[in-house]
Amino acid sequence: MSRKIRMGMVGGGRGAFIGAVHRMAAALDGEIELVCGAFSSNPEKSRLSGKDLFLPADRCYGSYEEMIKTEKSLPADIRMDFISIVTPNHVHFGPAKMALQNGFHVVCDKPLAFDMKEAKELQRLVKKTGLLFALTHNYTGYPMVKQARGMINKGKIGAVRKVVVEYPQGWLSTKLEATDQKQAAWRTDPKRSGIAGAMGDIGTHAENLAEYMTGLQIKKLCADINIMVEGRRLDDDGNVFLEFDNGAKGILFASQIAAGEENALRIRVYGEKAGLEWSQMEPNSLIVKWLNRPMEIMRTGVGKLYPEAQHATRIPAGHPEGYLEAFANIYKNFALSLRAILAGKKPKALHLDFPGVDDGLRGMRFIEKVIESGKSKQKWIKF
Amino acid sequence: MSRKIRMGMVGGGRGAFIGAVHRMAAALDGEIELVCGAFSSNPEKSRLSGKDLFLPADRCYGSYEEMIKTEKSLPADIRMDFISIVTPNHVHFGPAKMALQNGFHVVCDKPLAFDMKEAKELQRLVKKTGLLFALTHNYTGYPMVKQARGMINKGKIGAVRKVVVEYPQGWLSTKLEATDQKQAAWRTDPKRSGIAGAMGDIGTHAENLAEYMTGLQIKKLCADINIMVEGRRLDDDGNVFLEFDNGAKGILFASQIAAGEENALRIRVYGEKAGLEWSQMEPNSLIVKWLNRPMEIMRTGVGKLYPEAQHATRIPAGHPEGYLEAFANIYKNFALSLRAILAGKKPKALHLDFPGVDDGLRGMRFIEKVIESGKSKQKWIKF
Amino acid sequence: MSRKIRMGMVGGGRGAFIGAVHRMAAALDGEIELVCGAFSSNPEKSRLSGKDLFLPADRCYGSYEEMIKTEKSLPADIRMDFISIVTPNHVHFGPAKMALQNGFHVVCDKPLAFDMKEAKELQRLVKKTGLLFALTHNYTGYPMVKQARGMINKGKIGAVRKVVVEYPQGWLSTKLEATDQKQAAWRTDPKRSGIAGAMGDIGTHAENLAEYMTGLQIKKLCADINIMVEGRRLDDDGNVFLEFDNGAKGILFASQIAAGEENALRIRVYGEKAGLEWSQMEPNSLIVKWLNRPMEIMRTGVGKLYPEAQHATRIPAGHPEGYLEAFANIYKNFALSLRAILAGKKPKALHLDFPGVDDGLRGMRFIEKVIESGKSKQKWIKF
Amino acid sequence: MSRKIRMGMVGGGRGAFIGAVHRMAAALDGEIELVCGAFSSNPEKSRLSGKDLFLPADRCYGSYEEMIKTEKSLPADIRMDFISIVTPNHVHFGPAKMALQNGFHVVCDKPLAFDMKEAKELQRLVKKTGLLFALTHNYTGYPMVKQARGMINKGKIGAVRKVVVEYPQGWLSTKLEATDQKQAAWRTDPKRSGIAGAMGDIGTHAENLAEYMTGLQIKKLCADINIMVEGRRLDDDGNVFLEFDNGAKGILFASQIAAGEENALRIRVYGEKAGLEWSQMEPNSLIVKWLNRPMEIMRTGVGKLYPEAQHATRIPAGHPEGYLEAFANIYKNFALSLRAILAGKKPKALHLDFPGVDDGLRGMRFIEKVIESGKSKQKWIKF
Repeated sequence: MSRKIRMGMVGGGRGAFIGAVHRMAAALDGEIELVCGAFSSNPEKSRLSGKDLFLPADRCYGSYEEMIKTEKSLPADIRMDFISIVTPNHVHFGPAKMALQNGFHVVCDKPLAFDMKEAKELQRLVKKTGLLFALTHNYTGYPMVKQARGMINKGKIGAVRKVVVEYPQGWLSTKLEATDQKQAAWRTDPKRSGIAGAMGDIGTHAENLAEYMTGLQIKKLCADINIMVEGRRLDDDGNVFLEFDNGAKGILFASQIAAGEENALRIRVYGEKAGLEWSQMEPNSLIVKWLNRPMEIMRTGVGKLYPEAQHATRIPAGHPEGYLEAFANIYKNFALSLRAILAGKKPKALHLDFPGVDDGLRGMRFIEKVIESGKSKQKWIKF
Repeated sequence: MSRKIRMGMVGGGRGAFIGAVHRMAAALDGEIELVCGAFSSNPEKSRLSGKDLFLPADRCYGSYEEMIKTEKSLPADIRMDFISIVTPNHVHFGPAKMALQNGFHVVCDKPLAFDMKEAKELQRLVKKTGLLFALTHNYTGYPMVKQARGMINKGKIGAVRKVVVEYPQGWLSTKLEATDQKQAAWRTDPKRSGIAGAMGDIGTHAENLAEYMTGLQIKKLCADINIMVEGRRLDDDGNVFLEFDNGAKGILFASQIAAGEENALRIRVYGEKAGLEWSQMEPNSLIVKWLNRPMEIMRTGVGKLYPEAQHATRIPAGHPEGYLEAFANIYKNFALSLRAILAGKKPKALHLDFPGVDDGLRGMRFIEKVIESGKSKQKWIKF
Repeated sequence: MSRKIRMGMVGGGRGAFIGAVHRMAAALDGEIELVCGAFSSNPEKSRLSGKDLFLPADRCYGSYEEMIKTEKSLPADIRMDFISIVTPNHVHFGPAKMALQNGFHVVCDKPLAFDMKEAKELQRLVKKTGLLFALTHNYTGYPMVKQARGMINKGKIGAVRKVVVEYPQGWLSTKLEATDQKQAAWRTDPKRSGIAGAMGDIGTHAENLAEYMTGLQIKKLCADINIMVEGRRLDDDGNVFLEFDNGAKGILFASQIAAGEENALRIRVYGEKAGLEWSQMEPNSLIVKWLNRPMEIMRTGVGKLYPEAQHATRIPAGHPEGYLEAFANIYKNFALSLRAILAGKKPKALHLDFPGVDDGLRGMRFIEKVIESGKSKQKWIKF
Repeated sequence: MSRKIRMGMVGGGRGAFIGAVHRMAAALDGEIELVCGAFSSNPEKSRLSGKDLFLPADRCYGSYEEMIKTEKSLPADIRMDFISIVTPNHVHFGPAKMALQNGFHVVCDKPLAFDMKEAKELQRLVKKTGLLFALTHNYTGYPMVKQARGMINKGKIGAVRKVVVEYPQGWLSTKLEATDQKQAAWRTDPKRSGIAGAMGDIGTHAENLAEYMTGLQIKKLCADINIMVEGRRLDDDGNVFLEFDNGAKGILFASQIAAGEENALRIRVYGEKAGLEWSQMEPNSLIVKWLNRPMEIMRTGVGKLYPEAQHATRIPAGHPEGYLEAFANIYKNFALSLRAILAGKKPKALHLDFPGVDDGLRGMRFIEKVIESGKSKQKWIKF
């Protein structure tokens, strides 16, 4: 199939943040072209946003409903193959559901939905339709995260005993939502964000990273959920004890009032034989701390890495690959898998390595459970 | 008073670890001389240990009781001024009590005692006798810890909102106590260590550092206490939520099964205006992360630091000062204070900056409470 | 002008390295689309490479001559706007010259040409035609390099006294060119690389970075040029003393036998008031070392940076931007400038911030002079 | 021999810097006691300084001549065993010569002497008398420097090809000697420092470190020597190309006008199989960069290190050892060797691992040659 995969976008108009990230990630590898979009719920703004992106006016829609309906009516060699949903949390479910019901594959920003009910419905639809669904837990796209996952799965560090995953940010240290900062406004608004603030926005990334890297699942948790900035309506800080299905223990913390922190997602996994450490802000290094011998620093592109790590790497060692490249790895694998499907083939396991609706459901349950635990006087609750 | 301060040592014979550290720390600044010791409960071993240290045979005692009694009978210009207790936890109380009762000042390794009862009795005796008592929570001896404390106390980072203090080590990842490793043996033995393992050995350092640096006190906690190595009798891993008296929240974790970690005590304190980060393994840097402007790295010896940080610094910037220098700062301040007392003067506030019996009591309560909380199904308990 | 800028590529077929980098860099921002290419001197391979990239067969050419000639004959709303030259050094001149002579703008990989004669001819043609010419000294595309340049130019660090720029790599530590490694083969071959090996391949990047960041020009140099791997025909290591036009001194070294180094371009600039340090492998940090006050770490996206640094940044702080993003900044600025020109406007100064033919000529002179100095017994020679 | 080794000190009175360092280094391990001193050329100041150190008045001398003469006349069980010379460069030769002529062993600060003539005379006297002579090139005292030396000597990194050793400091960025800063004053004064400034003060440390770590000797050099601060009389910056006896090439630079640098001695050694990197400011790490496999970070106290590295380590991994401990390693080995000699035994090779008069002579020749080369128009000169 010698053509690019065609993407339609929902959200991401002028002034948005994550929409531009999705577009750059989708464009990077030349596998995908943006062909249409419903960039805003304001039709005029949507059209102007589309013009900025050099799209023809007739492919800039005033709503996702219009886009899905119209695109479906276009000839097969023109219409979009999938939609990318980059709206705030409360507008994930609508377009995702409608896309699935109309035969379009879906890439959706995280968290999966506004609440568990929506999440379960999407899971049901994905399973029913058999369409491809990617959730952009982009941090799993880094080569060294994949290398760590491979090492743990192959027993290189022995049984996992302890996981420490943290996601401190400082950008909500002041009441930014009281200014006209759009990103802060919707993230701290229960009507658009859901029941959680920081825990939904970044806590779920931490949860997803911990489960993806270790291959373990959280079984129990105990949460301390806080609002540190006066007058804020959703949590901006939280600490969680974890217990995994193999008995390993863990700590997860996420904060948006960790003053001065940028985007410091970091994970440490301690096994019987070694500890692993990976930091999103220095993503091309994976520190391996052995018992009684020198620690090693594995690096993107250096030496013999696992195929999934190599596949996620574009350039030679020492040429730093960053956030956009990791994000693009989700899109690349999604596109390669979709290309196989469109050609009537089965996607390769290597290409199906991206987060999907099941990961999304676990993320939604994590949100539900940490908020529930945060209100409880009891220590541990089941996940 | 133109002479060195005279120290007698309890413990620290051949094969011991922390005794040698205390001796180096005491020797470094030329303020203190070791004049006698009861280095072992085995009189022969004590004498041989003393000989290694070039002490005359008649000042090498077979027991601390003998040492205290004999030294007391020596002329004032010969006898020791204070004792330094470097034995395992269950042999802190005896020599400390007897020294205090016989007019000797005391330096004692942490934790203060074997249990709360002993701890309270020592506190009572120190207050009653008015003698000088130092507890070697040595990590507070680092210049940049003092600088951080000063900054927080002066409001430079605003009200503290969150504290993350961690102390991972990996040396007990295997069942080392089943070999003949002395350090592992007593630390994992309830009869010599007390009710806690890792929490007493290193958790109390973390607790002390957090309270010292922030000037806050823990008010409530919730602990998850674990034994990860099969057959071990005391905790080798633990996670604790903290609530401080100003409402700040915190996480403390200490582990001796964090495979591959050396001695990675680290603390982060987030205030309204900035975050501070300090790591024991790179102790000469204090990272200050401001809101919306470049982070700063304050360094031992660079620029205008607070007097207490300068006083704790011996050499120019870029000449790394380490663990022994920080440890020596406890001894230096103790000696300078004791020198004042011996001269009939009041010690300077600058010199009284070392941990004492009250800190020791808080540490003992911390041990008691985390172990209690670890067994409870209730989330928070009062400190 | 509501359309993408159209790019034709010379070189970059299957198995090539830098061609793919150029394509990703050009694609990232959605400003440019690849419309045609002469990807290989082998017409069949060129066509297959074009097919990989989803190009129509009739825009995949068998030679750059054919491409330029044919594209010129296409309607203005279809034909390419510029060519991107990603071939080995000996095939820069031919396509660049022909493109300029036929009215096409040019992006060219570095170094500018095979020798000084070619370089001067290209400079002449660029000036004569007035066409836009970018040379991909991509390391100047990093935001923090631009920030450093701004700081130096505005006198923040005082007069520059010393520059230390280094570019160690280790990948040619063995005689890799004796295997079938294509990248090693042409880089060590005088017929394709020119008179210099490491000095041309990476030394020119170091030279360009030093001049770009400081705003100074090299006036004299003294070089020690080495071949460390037996049987190699071009330098794989070199050390250079520099003297700049303001009297500052410098050291430049470049090596491809620095075993174990990845791509460790690093620069330190010391002025009267402060020192700056920037490392390509941690490109989002700029270390500012002040006299007598704490060092600062400026970070991509943190605080008030200069407009040229902000313009070179796509995502919020802590989301690492890397090599491809910096490379893409050259393309972005080239495209924005070209877009202005195509619309009959004058490009903004902010957008003209990319290396051009004059930088290329300085790079070629640097190559000529270090090789000359390397053979001389005299210490300093004029640049 | 069950007593401490007895040290007399020349220099190091009130206000001095390096004298206190020597005293702490000598005291740390309990092997040495300070028994007397000629701390200042001003007898009154010498006596007051001695009093600060709790020395009896009759062992505080008004001059080194008086000290050596008087001590020699004291009974063997009282008199000093060796002198430690901690004066500025122009007062090394006098006390060293007199001490050697009167049977006292010597520890001397670097550089060895004021000029080559003095240096050669001291070398002659040391060989003639057979007395022990240590030169405090203290940076060779770090465990990881010894580990690196061992690795290179055993061929772990293959033949050395390139050495990059650098020693940037920033403290003389302004004309500090125009204030009353004592350290700056004598170091920039040709009458007290000799023919070189920075090159003698710190360049010799870099030279010594490079030769010690690699086991190679410099054969040729080419130097660019600069005075960057107007009105200064001795070099404050210099760059040197090196050629070693095995054909390896190198760069050495030392600067005291590298604004904002503390004491950033750093060395990288590249062999055929791996590169090593060690930084004085993070001295407990040795980075080993292998070809085509993950880099390793060897750490003080971790895993199986060479005996000479273990012998230089006092405390467990992760308890940072710093500058004073490394300095103390020179004194410890000197004392252990001297103890053997005093007991009529041959010192162990492990204990003779400290710099001596031959290293001192190489350092003096380095000073002579870099200054000579700095004035020459010729590129390379023989060492």
